[in-house]
Amino acid sequence: MKRHTLIFILLSGILVCLANDVYAGDPSGSHTYSESIQGLKFSVNFAWTLLSAFLVFNMQAGFTFLGAGFIQKKNTLNYLAMSFVDFCVGALVFWLVGFALMFGGSKLAPGLSNGNLFVGYSGFLLLGNSYDVSTAMLWIFQIMFAATACTIVAGAVAERFKFHAHVLYSVFLCGVLYPIFGHWMWGKGWLEMLPFGVGARDFAGSGVVHGIGGLIAFIAAWMTGPRYGKYNPDGSPNVIHGHNLLYIVIGTLILIFGWFGFNAGSTLAVTELRVSVIAVNTFLSAASGAVTLLYLSFCMTKKSDVIMTCNGALAGCVAITASGAYVPHWAAIIIGIIASLITRISLHIIETKLKVDDPVGVISVHGVNGLWGLLSVGIFSDGTYGGVKGLITGSGWQLLAQFIACITLVVWCFSVGTLFFFIVKRLFGLRVPVNVERSGIDVYEHGTSCYPGL
Amino acid sequence: MKRHTLIFILLSGILVCLANDVYAGDPSGSHTYSESIQGLKFSVNFAWTLLSAFLVFNMQAGFTFLGAGFIQKKNTLNYLAMSFVDFCVGALVFWLVGFALMFGGSKLAPGLSNGNLFVGYSGFLLLGNSYDVSTAMLWIFQIMFAATACTIVAGAVAERFKFHAHVLYSVFLCGVLYPIFGHWMWGKGWLEMLPFGVGARDFAGSGVVHGIGGLIAFIAAWMTGPRYGKYNPDGSPNVIHGHNLLYIVIGTLILIFGWFGFNAGSTLAVTELRVSVIAVNTFLSAASGAVTLLYLSFCMTKKSDVIMTCNGALAGCVAITASGAYVPHWAAIIIGIIASLITRISLHIIETKLKVDDPVGVISVHGVNGLWGLLSVGIFSDGTYGGVKGLITGSGWQLLAQFIACITLVVWCFSVGTLFFFIVKRLFGLRVPVNVERSGIDVYEHGTSCYPGL
Amino acid sequence: MKRHTLIFILLSGILVCLANDVYAGDPSGSHTYSESIQGLKFSVNFAWTLLSAFLVFNMQAGFTFLGAGFIQKKNTLNYLAMSFVDFCVGALVFWLVGFALMFGGSKLAPGLSNGNLFVGYSGFLLLGNSYDVSTAMLWIFQIMFAATACTIVAGAVAERFKFHAHVLYSVFLCGVLYPIFGHWMWGKGWLEMLPFGVGARDFAGSGVVHGIGGLIAFIAAWMTGPRYGKYNPDGSPNVIHGHNLLYIVIGTLILIFGWFGFNAGSTLAVTELRVSVIAVNTFLSAASGAVTLLYLSFCMTKKSDVIMTCNGALAGCVAITASGAYVPHWAAIIIGIIASLITRISLHIIETKLKVDDPVGVISVHGVNGLWGLLSVGIFSDGTYGGVKGLITGSGWQLLAQFIACITLVVWCFSVGTLFFFIVKRLFGLRVPVNVERSGIDVYEHGTSCYPGL
Repeated sequence: MKRHTLIFILLSGILVCLANDVYAGDPSGSHTYSESIQGLKFSVNFAWTLLSAFLVFNMQAGFTFLGAGFIQKKNTLNYLAMSFVDFCVGALVFWLVGFALMFGGSKLAPGLSNGNLFVGYSGFLLLGNSYDVSTAMLWIFQIMFAATACTIVAGAVAERFKFHAHVLYSVFLCGVLYPIFGHWMWGKGWLEMLPFGVGARDFAGSGVVHGIGGLIAFIAAWMTGPRYGKYNPDGSPNVIHGHNLLYIVIGTLILIFGWFGFNAGSTLAVTELRVSVIAVNTFLSAASGAVTLLYLSFCMTKKSDVIMTCNGALAGCVAITASGAYVPHWAAIIIGIIASLITRISLHIIETKLKVDDPVGVISVHGVNGLWGLLSVGIFSDGTYGGVKGLITGSGWQLLAQFIACITLVVWCFSVGTLFFFIVKRLFGLRVPVNVERSGIDVYEHGTSCYPGL
Repeated sequence: MKRHTLIFILLSGILVCLANDVYAGDPSGSHTYSESIQGLKFSVNFAWTLLSAFLVFNMQAGFTFLGAGFIQKKNTLNYLAMSFVDFCVGALVFWLVGFALMFGGSKLAPGLSNGNLFVGYSGFLLLGNSYDVSTAMLWIFQIMFAATACTIVAGAVAERFKFHAHVLYSVFLCGVLYPIFGHWMWGKGWLEMLPFGVGARDFAGSGVVHGIGGLIAFIAAWMTGPRYGKYNPDGSPNVIHGHNLLYIVIGTLILIFGWFGFNAGSTLAVTELRVSVIAVNTFLSAASGAVTLLYLSFCMTKKSDVIMTCNGALAGCVAITASGAYVPHWAAIIIGIIASLITRISLHIIETKLKVDDPVGVISVHGVNGLWGLLSVGIFSDGTYGGVKGLITGSGWQLLAQFIACITLVVWCFSVGTLFFFIVKRLFGLRVPVNVERSGIDVYEHGTSCYPGL
Repeated sequence: MKRHTLIFILLSGILVCLANDVYAGDPSGSHTYSESIQGLKFSVNFAWTLLSAFLVFNMQAGFTFLGAGFIQKKNTLNYLAMSFVDFCVGALVFWLVGFALMFGGSKLAPGLSNGNLFVGYSGFLLLGNSYDVSTAMLWIFQIMFAATACTIVAGAVAERFKFHAHVLYSVFLCGVLYPIFGHWMWGKGWLEMLPFGVGARDFAGSGVVHGIGGLIAFIAAWMTGPRYGKYNPDGSPNVIHGHNLLYIVIGTLILIFGWFGFNAGSTLAVTELRVSVIAVNTFLSAASGAVTLLYLSFCMTKKSDVIMTCNGALAGCVAITASGAYVPHWAAIIIGIIASLITRISLHIIETKLKVDDPVGVISVHGVNGLWGLLSVGIFSDGTYGGVKGLITGSGWQLLAQFIACITLVVWCFSVGTLFFFIVKRLFGLRVPVNVERSGIDVYEHGTSCYPGL
């Protein structure tokens, strides 16, 4: 039997390959590169984008540390598995369909010519004309972003979610939900083409990546329900301690490290020298967010709260992701401060008013700040880059475009997300049995605990 | 006494330096670089290769996490020491002799002119003409690969090997065993020059790095014997749990991060735009390997096995290392799937049939897949890069060259490796006393446990 | 009230922005970049410097692991908080004043024209002409170095220092103490302009970064006093074990990874091909330092001391930081060996003779070796780069310049540092109450332990 399978795979591979040869783009790069200023410029930007993509991949290690630190020891392995498998599954799905839906019609690289304002439909499997070095470069950069959106959700549903339901929504998110909204914003879709300002802009994905991740996380956490023991019968929340705060700090550091690639790399070109301003803005926003929440917490509790400090830094990073390219340095600091305040308030409201249980705090850090990031473009852009002019230049049109993007993002995530999780809940169920939740998911789903020798 | 030593060192230093000045290449880079398209191309590729080398260095952190996770708490510090010291010792030996044996005669950089099809003999100590910016760049990239091969072995002999025997084989591996095979494949040696296809090709070192590491690991683990308690009197194996699965997942993530530099950096040039295809292939192969073993394990045990998932991802990375530059995307996925299946079968055979005890699983992941990676070049190369044409283009010659490389690799490792470990076993012994093994190597060899405060 | 604050911030922001527009440099980069060889060279070096800065940022994760491993479990969170917050606070202060004091007058980028031999005074808040892509690039690279100096101190005062006193000296260090000495060495200050040799040289900051960090650490640790229980009534020291040696090894690996960016990136240009020699020197110095202390310890105690091995590697890195660009490869090895010996002796003297308690060993590794690094420039520079000629070329003038820099560094740190910590001690106190120190700072300062679930 196994022999037959192998032969079948080989045969079908040969067929695909033949089709491939006929329609190929420039898979060797020898036509794209030439020994000229144009050719060198191309390859310099190639290097920049690829290295940035690698840095963004490293954020997976950051998310793994961060999330693992926030949750209980008995569910750590489950979180690790979710956070690891989603980018693997996501990569395959994004290769099969997601990338084509997102960038088809964008004409950003060969083989991406077919698509309209609402959805793309070329570049499937990176075959034919899209078997090209430029298309491959765009793909590797973009899959890292899709994988990030996916991993964000894992933090909100941790400690009670079924592992295979997580795989299922990773397929859906990377295959359909994320690419379609992404197409609207980055693939020459209708949001990018709005007739207000220069059209809606989300430079590196406050909305597309973090907004989608955080809002889907909200839907998922809300439909899954809180962890056993999170709320008392009178509705008051209990604190469920994470098991390792060192992991949270290390995770935050690794995330900021990757975020430099995330934001500065999103020019896809280092010949756009604005990248240095973007990097500085990212760092200042993170720093001001962290310091704000550190001292806000200190004023409220007389303790220097490390978790809040980390949340502040991440909130600053999320918010500046959309606007980092367009705003001056002083605005980056204000954006970071506001982002951290929003996070603090949102964490409070979601936990005590909405009673949605979010162990890692991703809804507030990524979701709510994703929206704030989108809006901040319309407020603080100073017109020095990309022609984007915010309120501070005296024009309100860009803010209108950003506002429309926010509304669209919320409607899209809430409608499609709710529908999807409703169906999954009905067909397969979203959470593990309550006795499993109490004793820990690790042994039940994965056959061992995370620290088996202890 | 100390003063005399210092004076002696200074004097000998001055002598060496004088010799140095006389024969120097271009140590400042001012002759190599010029303000022209050629000069810029050179420096762009310089940046690419150096940054890739740094990423590959970071894989040391990955291996450290990975291995530490797989082994028992009482031997963790010993593994850390082995994994840290081997690259330090390796760097010094590679500087003294290894590099010259490997790249002498390759003419890849100044000062590497003398060598033949079987061994190189120029570039010792990076002195004379090889005190040159280009040669230094090649050296820093290559030492990272040699160090990787060295560290791989540490995983297979963990928990019972003598620390100083490890240092000894690190000297031997980086000084002789690895460079000579490396010369055959990468230094204009006889394998590279085979008259079949374009000659044997191992793009980034499935065979040279992972194959050698994994096969030497097999010899070492076999001659050292299994850990105390690994096998029952009836020959059935026991599971010896690692102590921290989080480290395994983090280690895998850091390794994949570094692997982008490992594979895409091996062009030594980002003006070879094929690098983007290589990066995509690496990611797809890792992802498909991980998903394959995740669901294969799930079908067999109804548990989602995180360790197997990580092994699958790493197996995909190892296999695509040789072929990533030559194959289309769909083939990368097939190569990853097959690699993960091979790993699963190999893990079973080595543990239960051959009864060789490999705590970290490196023989299967790196050794066996190193061979598969070499073969995959001969099967799936589509002729779009480097003129390499595999079976799918209808030609079998390349596969023949790859097959010869495999056979050579196995014969080389088994003959020289066995001889070396036999001698060391006779002269110094390979394993710690059994009472030390039972109580833990950390305190015995290193004077403290890894977690002394606990 | 909150609404008023927001409006105030917005209004003042608008005012700043207007001023901004009037005096702006080239914030978009469109004037700086042109489609020419010059423009490409600029952007290649831009990419190199930015990516190096990101690598240096990642050293924060290395310091966090390293320090956390060296200290006791009950104080881990406090160390994490110090190490995280200092770079956040530092970034804001460096943006406000530090950068302007350090690089004003250096003319290294637009907006940095005003300054004299002793202090700079232009570039505050990166406003006006210094709102420019080149200035932003210089800033992001330099803040990473300032943050490193800050974090070094945290290791020496760990386990007893008040958290907010740490924030205070971070402000002082990044705002005044570090920038002014930095100006002397790197901002066209009097040390750089010394009429001996080519003027004092500190390539990547052995003195500026590690020397300042380590010497201030000495002052801080000395004025704070040793940890409770470190010294017996007879003055003999006790060993206080760290809690996780794996963190020490991982931290060291991540630090070396970042050090490649630290040293090779300090050319600020990859068109200076010397970067490859710098990278090789860094690696060789680290390796020789590690091997030296490994076998020195082994000869003395018959144990293979992992902590000493890590210290040796770091000592080699610190020492080669000043001289890596100027010396040949063989000298890098000697510098590493001497650095590790100095570290071993210094650790002994500081602990047993001076009775200054330094939990992480930063005074010896960074401070003393910072001075040795400065001197090594004057001894081993071979004249192949930057015109720097050391003793081995037969000239002693450079060594004189380096010696003056050492003296200046010591006097500067000891005078200003002592004064500062004396004032802080009087006004706020430096250490936590002794009962807090005994029970652990984490719960007292931060409201929770680092491992709350355990």
